[in-house]
Amino acid sequence: MHTWLSSLVTDKNTRAGKYFDLVTQAVIALSLILFTLETVPELASYAPFFELAEAVIIIFFTVEYVLRFAAAGSKRAYIFSFYGIIDLLSILPFFLTLGVVDLRFVRIFRLFRLLRLFKLTRYTHALNRLKRAVDDIKEELILYVVFTLLLIYLSSIGIYYFENQAQPEKFRSVIDSMWWAIATLTTVGYGDIFPITAGGKLFTFFLLLIGLGFVSVPSALLAAALTRQFRHRNDEQPPSS
Amino acid sequence: MHTWLSSLVTDKNTRAGKYFDLVTQAVIALSLILFTLETVPELASYAPFFELAEAVIIIFFTVEYVLRFAAAGSKRAYIFSFYGIIDLLSILPFFLTLGVVDLRFVRIFRLFRLLRLFKLTRYTHALNRLKRAVDDIKEELILYVVFTLLLIYLSSIGIYYFENQAQPEKFRSVIDSMWWAIATLTTVGYGDIFPITAGGKLFTFFLLLIGLGFVSVPSALLAAALTRQFRHRNDEQPPSS
Amino acid sequence: MHTWLSSLVTDKNTRAGKYFDLVTQAVIALSLILFTLETVPELASYAPFFELAEAVIIIFFTVEYVLRFAAAGSKRAYIFSFYGIIDLLSILPFFLTLGVVDLRFVRIFRLFRLLRLFKLTRYTHALNRLKRAVDDIKEELILYVVFTLLLIYLSSIGIYYFENQAQPEKFRSVIDSMWWAIATLTTVGYGDIFPITAGGKLFTFFLLLIGLGFVSVPSALLAAALTRQFRHRNDEQPPSS
Amino acid sequence: MHTWLSSLVTDKNTRAGKYFDLVTQAVIALSLILFTLETVPELASYAPFFELAEAVIIIFFTVEYVLRFAAAGSKRAYIFSFYGIIDLLSILPFFLTLGVVDLRFVRIFRLFRLLRLFKLTRYTHALNRLKRAVDDIKEELILYVVFTLLLIYLSSIGIYYFENQAQPEKFRSVIDSMWWAIATLTTVGYGDIFPITAGGKLFTFFLLLIGLGFVSVPSALLAAALTRQFRHRNDEQPPSS
Repeated sequence: MHTWLSSLVTDKNTRAGKYFDLVTQAVIALSLILFTLETVPELASYAPFFELAEAVIIIFFTVEYVLRFAAAGSKRAYIFSFYGIIDLLSILPFFLTLGVVDLRFVRIFRLFRLLRLFKLTRYTHALNRLKRAVDDIKEELILYVVFTLLLIYLSSIGIYYFENQAQPEKFRSVIDSMWWAIATLTTVGYGDIFPITAGGKLFTFFLLLIGLGFVSVPSALLAAALTRQFRHRNDEQPPSS
Repeated sequence: MHTWLSSLVTDKNTRAGKYFDLVTQAVIALSLILFTLETVPELASYAPFFELAEAVIIIFFTVEYVLRFAAAGSKRAYIFSFYGIIDLLSILPFFLTLGVVDLRFVRIFRLFRLLRLFKLTRYTHALNRLKRAVDDIKEELILYVVFTLLLIYLSSIGIYYFENQAQPEKFRSVIDSMWWAIATLTTVGYGDIFPITAGGKLFTFFLLLIGLGFVSVPSALLAAALTRQFRHRNDEQPPSS
Repeated sequence: MHTWLSSLVTDKNTRAGKYFDLVTQAVIALSLILFTLETVPELASYAPFFELAEAVIIIFFTVEYVLRFAAAGSKRAYIFSFYGIIDLLSILPFFLTLGVVDLRFVRIFRLFRLLRLFKLTRYTHALNRLKRAVDDIKEELILYVVFTLLLIYLSSIGIYYFENQAQPEKFRSVIDSMWWAIATLTTVGYGDIFPITAGGKLFTFFLLLIGLGFVSVPSALLAAALTRQFRHRNDEQPPSS
Repeated sequence: MHTWLSSLVTDKNTRAGKYFDLVTQAVIALSLILFTLETVPELASYAPFFELAEAVIIIFFTVEYVLRFAAAGSKRAYIFSFYGIIDLLSILPFFLTLGVVDLRFVRIFRLFRLLRLFKLTRYTHALNRLKRAVDDIKEELILYVVFTLLLIYLSSIGIYYFENQAQPEKFRSVIDSMWWAIATLTTVGYGDIFPITAGGKLFTFFLLLIGLGFVSVPSALLAAALTRQFRHRNDEQPPSS
């Protein structure tokens, strides 16, 4: 039975394994859609239906967890693996809150339900190239995150000195100014907070001139690293053209 | 006659073929300009003129369709080819709505008229390099689209938990929160919806720090793939410098 | 005298030529600063001073033009060269409007004064690499401009159908919708115009998912082409590290 | 003693040197957090605590400065080195303002305190690659900064002519228009200032079509230069895959 279970749960090449994966993915997608619809105020009257559907899904995921546990060679390794933890977190909150009265309390646990999403990534092999590319530029990425954080901090202090007196409500403290720094350096620019003094505008000008170059480098680096991964692939295979 | 037609309609190297292409392109451009002007409220009084012009253009496109049909080696292959379908859709809605009274009904069909635009792309050969470049990174692009969708979904749920209580009108449900996630992760930031709680702002901060890198990778990947196509070209020809 | 003039006006390696260039650049910068300050309402009382300064600058540029004309080997070639035309346009509007009463009329001519700026580029040699890089990807850039225009046009029509009924004042016609399309696809997102219907928001979502990739490709392509120019340079010289 | 001091202050490989660095970094981080919290209006009552903490930190940094000075081979070289100046500026403002009454005056000096941050960068070696990459494209970066400044200037004049009459309050002068140009070309788009005339919108359209390509090139160039630095590294080591 062990072999049959293994081929169902972990082997993607057998027919049964394929169907098992397809069904699991469909149920995950369904649970996400239901979770989304639950938050729509207009559908509040369907709450009993949502609760029933949730219970059915939890049963499915529990059976799946038990099967995966049974199929695993090393039980211990499965429980403490990344996906083992994700699988457990997907179902555990439901059992922990059974009989609990205060629903507010439950809500916080439900946030863990999002983790169920990560199961989707189990099914893709194309991630390896991305993983190697990120590995390749790990130090550079960390350096840029540090740089970006420093830049956000420095620009928050700078804009605070320029704008605090003119807009004491919006630029209340350096912490409030950070919200401006983030929205500006990422060029999101919601428009809820922006400099109005000449000094603040000049400061923003130089900040953007210097800052934008740095903030957008990580994605360009990642693309370059991925391109290198492609070149390695192409050295093995003939090019597509 | 078949040979003469072929050289007119499909051969771009003969003089007649060139003029035919130029005239067709001009009529397509004209029909698009007229379509645009029709929507301007100030020009509502010119409606009869627009209708007449539309009728003339439809006659031109119908003649063109008949010519292309006659010139085609395999009639069946032309009708079911991409451009055969586009050509037909460009003229069909007009004939289907002749004599129909309710104009609202017509409007929906007119959306197909946009497809006429794609005819313009028939005339360019430079697309091949783009097509090969997209082919080269197809898997990566799909992976990123999936990632982006997951990121949008997860950030919608996250911001919903943080902002729903503070702004129940703007972050009404996870679906409404998605509109915020899209406007934020693409850095469009219209400013119609943004977090106001400390938690929501902190969440946005980490989302942008992680998310922006991913969202802008596809275009960098496409540029890198196009650059590879250039290198292949340059291996055959000497460089321009 | 001809040789002395040539070494002053066109030769950048002689001492006199260097000083001539420095003084010319300083006067151009000064004229730009004055032009900017002229538009500040608070400085309206200094108008006579600005007029005097403008007259002095025009005399300087006229003398410079005469010198360049005298130094030129082929007078005809200089007059019709790019910089010959720029030089003339920098001073001509002033003489054409002498004695003219209506100042509004003059304003339009003054727009030509901006062209004086382009003289600054004469002094840099580093542009050649950029020029070769642009040459290298000319076809691709044109293709992307065409694509971007098509995308803006199609998205304008699409959003018009979705939003016209809900916001007849903002999305009045396809032309007005184009302003939205530009602000959205470039991710500027001023916030003066944005979709409010579910259909319009979904349309924007897919537009951004597809569109952003295309719109940001040209700059990535340009960077890649410039990188190739660097590699050519590095093949001749040893690397800097 | 000199050798022991050197190994503590400048050598990162000894145990004592490592602890010294860790403690110094922690104190810098602490001083930054305190500085940030000081600006929060709600914490105004904790002012005496902040002042005490600041005094303790200044003592720590002063001792550190004296140790570094004592450990330095050439005292003169340390004082006039980049970090020597930063170290001094981190503590000097405090001593200069001791006994000064007007606190407003002090605030300006406190801006120098931000420089303390740069000490953090002393501890990272990964910057060298970035430094070489920037060196590699120095001329190009300067050229682009000049280009960007020209573009901002020209677009400010252009939009001023189009929008000044329609929005005299927002586009008051060319200088005010520059704020618009910066927010638009960086795609931040706060929404506080945008064109409303047809001419101004058309001008913005062409500006973005041409301008965006240029403004985002520097970061792509930097990424390409960093990639070259990686290739040099990989030529020495075997690739990670």
